[in-house]
Amino acid sequence: MTGRAMTVIDINADLGEGFGVWKLGDDSALLDVITSANVACGFHAGDPLIMRRVCSAAVERGVTIGAQVSYWDLAGFGRREMDVAAPELTAEILYQLAALDGIARAEGGRVAYVKPHGALYNRVARDPVQARAVADAVRAYDPSLPLLTLPASAVHDVADGLTVVAECFADRAYTPSGALVSRREQGAVVHDPDTVVQRAVRMAVDGTVVAVDGTEVALKARSICVHGDTPGAVVLARSVRSALSEAGVTLEPFA
Amino acid sequence: MTGRAMTVIDINADLGEGFGVWKLGDDSALLDVITSANVACGFHAGDPLIMRRVCSAAVERGVTIGAQVSYWDLAGFGRREMDVAAPELTAEILYQLAALDGIARAEGGRVAYVKPHGALYNRVARDPVQARAVADAVRAYDPSLPLLTLPASAVHDVADGLTVVAECFADRAYTPSGALVSRREQGAVVHDPDTVVQRAVRMAVDGTVVAVDGTEVALKARSICVHGDTPGAVVLARSVRSALSEAGVTLEPFA
Amino acid sequence: MTGRAMTVIDINADLGEGFGVWKLGDDSALLDVITSANVACGFHAGDPLIMRRVCSAAVERGVTIGAQVSYWDLAGFGRREMDVAAPELTAEILYQLAALDGIARAEGGRVAYVKPHGALYNRVARDPVQARAVADAVRAYDPSLPLLTLPASAVHDVADGLTVVAECFADRAYTPSGALVSRREQGAVVHDPDTVVQRAVRMAVDGTVVAVDGTEVALKARSICVHGDTPGAVVLARSVRSALSEAGVTLEPFA
Amino acid sequence: MTGRAMTVIDINADLGEGFGVWKLGDDSALLDVITSANVACGFHAGDPLIMRRVCSAAVERGVTIGAQVSYWDLAGFGRREMDVAAPELTAEILYQLAALDGIARAEGGRVAYVKPHGALYNRVARDPVQARAVADAVRAYDPSLPLLTLPASAVHDVADGLTVVAECFADRAYTPSGALVSRREQGAVVHDPDTVVQRAVRMAVDGTVVAVDGTEVALKARSICVHGDTPGAVVLARSVRSALSEAGVTLEPFA
Repeated sequence: MTGRAMTVIDINADLGEGFGVWKLGDDSALLDVITSANVACGFHAGDPLIMRRVCSAAVERGVTIGAQVSYWDLAGFGRREMDVAAPELTAEILYQLAALDGIARAEGGRVAYVKPHGALYNRVARDPVQARAVADAVRAYDPSLPLLTLPASAVHDVADGLTVVAECFADRAYTPSGALVSRREQGAVVHDPDTVVQRAVRMAVDGTVVAVDGTEVALKARSICVHGDTPGAVVLARSVRSALSEAGVTLEPFA
Repeated sequence: MTGRAMTVIDINADLGEGFGVWKLGDDSALLDVITSANVACGFHAGDPLIMRRVCSAAVERGVTIGAQVSYWDLAGFGRREMDVAAPELTAEILYQLAALDGIARAEGGRVAYVKPHGALYNRVARDPVQARAVADAVRAYDPSLPLLTLPASAVHDVADGLTVVAECFADRAYTPSGALVSRREQGAVVHDPDTVVQRAVRMAVDGTVVAVDGTEVALKARSICVHGDTPGAVVLARSVRSALSEAGVTLEPFA
Repeated sequence: MTGRAMTVIDINADLGEGFGVWKLGDDSALLDVITSANVACGFHAGDPLIMRRVCSAAVERGVTIGAQVSYWDLAGFGRREMDVAAPELTAEILYQLAALDGIARAEGGRVAYVKPHGALYNRVARDPVQARAVADAVRAYDPSLPLLTLPASAVHDVADGLTVVAECFADRAYTPSGALVSRREQGAVVHDPDTVVQRAVRMAVDGTVVAVDGTEVALKARSICVHGDTPGAVVLARSVRSALSEAGVTLEPFA
Repeated sequence: MTGRAMTVIDINADLGEGFGVWKLGDDSALLDVITSANVACGFHAGDPLIMRRVCSAAVERGVTIGAQVSYWDLAGFGRREMDVAAPELTAEILYQLAALDGIARAEGGRVAYVKPHGALYNRVARDPVQARAVADAVRAYDPSLPLLTLPASAVHDVADGLTVVAECFADRAYTPSGALVSRREQGAVVHDPDTVVQRAVRMAVDGTVVAVDGTEVALKARSICVHGDTPGAVVLARSVRSALSEAGVTLEPFA
């Protein structure tokens, strides 16, 4: 099929999420799977040395580097929503982005995109004030950097000239309107590996997903997010990559 | 004297040393006195919003911005020596430098030099391993950035191509060999304002200081460090600046 | 009036809110004004040495010590609401309470009550889940310790055997229903010192306050909260104390 | 041999050394091996919820709880020596000790001893100033609490009424004078499991160890320290415990 040969998608994952003596996930294995690495910037995970090593490894393997910016909350891994005022949040994002970019450049790379992490990712999807605060930081640093987020997110409304790139999740259930089913609800996560792989291919090739009510929903995404925090997750990520390649999808970073 | 008209010196001070709700020093007043601002980068003081505001004000007043890099020790204000391994220290300095530079650039400026803070400043003066770790970070980020330090410091020995700029302290006593008298010894700090002002002028114009034993010591410095953490300190810094101007010294940043 | 002679009230204020090199407020002056000190426990402010010094001073002056517990957020001074899960919040409160109590006991005192700080104070007033998480920590540590909070707060509903003590604010505007006017609204804070003093006396003696609409509202409070973060605030706090004494009110801690 | 039947030793290990989302070591497995748990107190590792869970599990399994106190250095896991002034260090140790004790009591246990961690452990062995600062904290909190440390440590000299308990390491090489061979030297760690087990038994039963030069050295220790940060370490710890039991050694906490 000629159509398939033209399909292009990026695979992104969170990297560098250890801190000091603590490790999380298998960065080395993931770098063989993904085309874009969301590198933690020290606010929810990641310390300067980990950031430097991850950037070095990403540059060596030709993986694109993105800044995975977060609330300032190591104790909560950035998973707790915080009512940070906009000027503070903008400055905090700018700080993280600049720190990682400088480290990446010292290793011969550069930050090519920005992805909010955890609770901030969810908050900016529905809160235009915090979304604008994040966008303001990116614009102040380098307006050519794209933001990676949900297809339906308040970020799109406040981007104001910034490029916004949509991503999808092969292992997450979707509502008929194309939103993620909340993790608080049953069935939010798809556990069967074969189903996850099939969904990934369908998302990439057809741009659709089967929602929880069985209806087919359009889902235009330029990147697919995979996880690597358990050995099983890395195996699954590898399967997703293989299946995408076999389906004729070109794996290519968006930035 | 024709010689005097040619004398050029920089005045530097520590700025942006609050954190969150806490304030320290009078940044606004100091910006009218100094030509170079050592801006805290978040590791001993300074948070992203404070850094942004200080950079904005420095750019507005034409004051040169330097990165005041430190051990990672908010609780100790960077005043406690730490046995940080070289790769970690290099990465930590790189992180701080990049973060501040990105924020400065967002405000229309840039980091033009690097000055270690507190315990790190003292440690790198005598420890070539930590000195090299700091120099490595600067070299990795931008080898054109000068390091501001003591005339006698291990930093000079490990600079390896980096520019090292010497600074002096008008309110500190010196040994006959041109080193600072340790703060643990009596008479380490010169308290009389008139004496401080006279010493500053002599340092700038003649390149000398009277040591604790009464001998005159050569002290070649391109910058003079002033303090601003008390109202009296700001008044004294202003007097130093006025006296230098009256003595025909040109006040000019070194970077 | 015989009734006045029987009126008893406590004056509380936040103490120990510096951190490391940074200072905030005039603890020493406040200790002469208040009967109960809400001592910061290191999560929004306060470090171990500051906590020890404040406890020592409070014991020396016979001021009752309370644990001012907070979200874990030094950068935001505990003023940013956080979606902390209940088991984490309970453990965090327990940690702070135990740490301060141990320090207070080493100085010959003890923690006699608990007061949530900042965003946590406001959150527990309306969120029964976080309110219960705080109450659970107090109950686990020592169920005889009272919680100090608003007269209308979700804390009362979840106290489940704990003593809850109500406090009032002489410098804050009240709604006709006896709630505080939000700081986001104009007129939330009463700035005129004489008015503040008169309100304080009326709160203590009559148990009433004039609300923003001019109606008189009942306000039963066993403690009145004063501030000390500016020189003016300390002067005002002194005036409040004097006026209460002159009105025949007995100043006495509630715990 | 009747002598053997009388031999009593404690087995201690570090527990609760995760932080937030990060895990370290297998606390659950270790609790079946050890008689004393050195629980991290939040300064190098451990957060309030982890501390609470470890205390709960230790109480349930009848394992004695000790406070593993540290420098304030999450980023460096307490492994970097810090020049903390004595009053600060004392207050920091007191804070950690009190926090853990309060949490332990809420779970039905209590802190029964104190063991410095990492760089602080090594520093207090040779620096009487920091050793005294630690001892002062223990004395201020509860002078009946023993300190667990090396047989040769400056702690003994400054204990001044405190009980000091000596521990040994079955997997570490010793000098002829009974000190640990520095980790910077080759052969500092004994890797062969059988040798480690034999050394442990000999330490417990005979109170001796074969030093790096082949001489037999007396080593009086009431506790033996094991590690649990790798699967292999846990297996080895189990073997040490079994061998000690088989050799007729009674396993019993010292506190």
